[in-house]
Amino acid sequence: MKEKIMKESIDLFDKKGFSDTSIQDIVDLIGVTKGTFYYYFKSKQELLRDIHLSYLERLLMEQKKILQDESKNYKEKLLAIIHLTVSKIKDEGKMARIVFREMRHLNEDNLNQIKMKRKEFRLNFQQILEEGVQQGEFNETIRTDILSFAILGMVNRSYYWFNPDGEISAEELSDLYLKLILEGIDRRS
Amino acid sequence: MKEKIMKESIDLFDKKGFSDTSIQDIVDLIGVTKGTFYYYFKSKQELLRDIHLSYLERLLMEQKKILQDESKNYKEKLLAIIHLTVSKIKDEGKMARIVFREMRHLNEDNLNQIKMKRKEFRLNFQQILEEGVQQGEFNETIRTDILSFAILGMVNRSYYWFNPDGEISAEELSDLYLKLILEGIDRRS
Repeated sequence: MKEKIMKESIDLFDKKGFSDTSIQDIVDLIGVTKGTFYYYFKSKQELLRDIHLSYLERLLMEQKKILQDESKNYKEKLLAIIHLTVSKIKDEGKMARIVFREMRHLNEDNLNQIKMKRKEFRLNFQQILEEGVQQGEFNETIRTDILSFAILGMVNRSYYWFNPDGEISAEELSDLYLKLILEGIDRRS
Repeated sequence: MKEKIMKESIDLFDKKGFSDTSIQDIVDLIGVTKGTFYYYFKSKQELLRDIHLSYLERLLMEQKKILQDESKNYKEKLLAIIHLTVSKIKDEGKMARIVFREMRHLNEDNLNQIKMKRKEFRLNFQQILEEGVQQGEFNETIRTDILSFAILGMVNRSYYWFNPDGEISAEELSDLYLKLILEGIDRRS
């Protein structure tokens, strides 16, 4: 039931927004009482936090596997993380939109907890850039801190415009991002 | 008075969110009656639309100047538009946050109007990439459509993390974006 409440709430939050969705709306949709809701979640706030946590913790788990994969060089790790992020947006678009749009409706404690998770993801990403520089795979003059914000900003923003059923697949989009990030668009002679 | 209502509403929407701000909150802050509000805006919805329009129309006007500037080559135009976008985020951070966060609270007609403006900005950007390819400044194999989404996504996302009072200025950030977009991070021998 907890999973079901989460799933249906994600639908509602995506359609109407977090603020304009009431617990009543959620339980009406599932056909249970408010008591059932409160058995699993202390509040709508706790539910929103759990949606964020569920999304981010799975991302972090997958990211960790990529970090530890000794068969990949740093360019391959970069591509794998880009692909991970785009795939999550493809597979869990509604949840992704809530995670990117409704963060501001988290209360202070929950917001801090979620910001820590996001920061962890970003710093892991930065570590790949730094180690890639050390290994001679990336240009040693790059600002790995700013570039982590920049690249993740670009990739995350796919949630807004990327249509997984469109002409370009998640794999192709990830390859295009990687090519831009590695080579840029300058014409070389 | 219209300007004042807009300015104070931007403060409130930024702090509390659009949904959780009432017209009463707005008029209380300014010390006028609801009648005054309704003299200038039919509804909170119209006010939100006007905030979006005001932000986007000024961006489009500045963008047009850059497009028509014959003294600049396409790389310079690219940098000028990146810098324009980052500077707006720097100078009008609150308004930028509303434009990026509260779009979903626009009703259908207003949303369509705003989406048209955003699309206009994106297609103008794409035109720079295309003409730059034709002029031999950018690599002719790039997907200018996807790259327009990608680059604007990256640059716009600065609203979320860029601190104009921090270590990096808007100019420096724009230069870093340009360098990434032109050259990439691959180590060249």
